Amino acid sequence: MSIAIVGGTGPAGSGLASRWAQAGLTIIIGSRDPQRASARAEEIRRQTGGQVSGAENKTACESAEIVVLTIPFEGHAEMLKHLKPALKPSQIVVETTVPLAASVGGRPTRTLGVWQGSAAQETAELVPQGVAVVAAFHNLPAGLLKHAGPVDCDVIVCSDHKEAAHRVRDLARKIPGVRALDGGKLENARIVEQITALLIGFNIRHKGLSGLRITGLPPEAYDI
Amino acid sequence: MSIAIVGGTGPAGSGLASRWAQAGLTIIIGSRDPQRASARAEEIRRQTGGQVSGAENKTACESAEIVVLTIPFEGHAEMLKHLKPALKPSQIVVETTVPLAASVGGRPTRTLGVWQGSAAQETAELVPQGVAVVAAFHNLPAGLLKHAGPVDCDVIVCSDHKEAAHRVRDLARKIPGVRALDGGKLENARIVEQITALLIGFNIRHKGLSGLRITGLPPEAYDI
Repeated sequence: MSIAIVGGTGPAGSGLASRWAQAGLTIIIGSRDPQRASARAEEIRRQTGGQVSGAENKTACESAEIVVLTIPFEGHAEMLKHLKPALKPSQIVVETTVPLAASVGGRPTRTLGVWQGSAAQETAELVPQGVAVVAAFHNLPAGLLKHAGPVDCDVIVCSDHKEAAHRVRDLARKIPGVRALDGGKLENARIVEQITALLIGFNIRHKGLSGLRITGLPPEAYDI
Repeated sequence: MSIAIVGGTGPAGSGLASRWAQAGLTIIIGSRDPQRASARAEEIRRQTGGQVSGAENKTACESAEIVVLTIPFEGHAEMLKHLKPALKPSQIVVETTVPLAASVGGRPTRTLGVWQGSAAQETAELVPQGVAVVAAFHNLPAGLLKHAGPVDCDVIVCSDHKEAAHRVRDLARKIPGVRALDGGKLENARIVEQITALLIGFNIRHKGLSGLRITGLPPEAYDI
C-alpha cells in the first residue's frame, strides 16, 4: 500500500510518515518544493529503514492509493484545487486538517466556522466524484509521533464511505498504542476537528501533549 | 455545601445527586412537580443515607449555594426565565445541558447551533448579573452515575469565573474515578457540549456507555 502525504514535511505529516514507514508501508512525502520533500524523505528513510520517497504534492498523489492531507487550513481549498487533476475515483483522501482560527491570525484554541460544516466536508466538495474522503488523525499530538514509543490516543474516523473508513482505521492501528474508532458519518468530523482546539488549550495551560481516549465501549468497538 | 439540581428527577440529575449525597453534600432535588421531587429525594436518601430533600425547581434554587441544571434543551431558555428571580449573585450555576438536535425532533448524534455559541453561553446571558456560570458534566454517562462504582471519565470544566470553576472541579472529583480539567473559558463549552453528541453516536453503534479521558497532561493538570 502506498501513501502520499501532502504537506509531509510538517510535523504531523512527517510524524505519520515515520510511523507508517516503520510499519512497512510505502510513503511518498509531498511538498510544494520537491527538493525539501526529497530531503525529508531521505531523513525518514535513514531513521526508519523504510520505503520513503519525496515529490511535489500533486506528483506525490498521482501514484498513491491513499492521499493524506496534513496542511494548514489557510491553504486548504487552494491546495485541493491544485491536487484535483491528480486524484482518481479509486483513491482515498484522508483529511487531518483542523480549521484553527490561527489560520486567519486568531487563536489556535478556536476554530473557524466552515460553511460545509468542517474542513473534511469542504474537502468532500472539492475532490473529483468517486474519491472517498475520510476524516481522521486530528487529535494525535504530532509531538508524540516523531518519537518511537506508543501513542496514548484514540483516532476517531469519520466517513460516508464504509470500506474506505475501514482501511483508514487499519492504517491508524499501525501506530503503536493507537486504537481506531468508527466516528460515524463525515459530518461528525466537525466535532473531531474542534476537539483539537480544546486539546491545544490544555497543552497551552499545562505544557502537555494531550490526546484523548474514549472509554466505556466494548473491546470489539476498537477492532472493526 | 448545598446543591440544587434542577431537573433532578431525570437520569443525569438523579445520578449526580446520588454521587454527591454519598460524598456528604446536601442535595435539593428540583422538579416542576414538587411531589415527584420529594419522592425521588426520598429514594436517593434511602439508597445513600445522605441529606437529600425535594422541591419545585425555583424553590430548590433559593437556598442552594450551587445550582446544577440537568434539563433537556427544549425547555432550557424558558426554565432559566422561570428560575431567574430565585438566582442571586453569590451563586454558581452549573450548566450540563447539551443542545441535542433531538430537542426539535432531530437526532441525538447532532447538535443544534445556539446563537450564543453553546447552551452554557445562552445560560450566561439569561442569569442575573454576578451569577457565575460554569459548564461541566456534559460527557459523563448518566447510566454509570446511578451505580456505585468508579466512573471512567474526565470532566472538562469551562467558565469565565476562575474561583467558581475551581469549586466545580472539586465537586467533580467527589465522584469516584472522575478527574476534573480546566477547559478554559465558557466559550469552549461549545466543544464539550458537542462531544456528547459524538459519544451518543458511539453508544448507539456499539451499545456502550462511553466517556472520555484526556491523556498526555502532567498530573498537576488534574489537581488544580
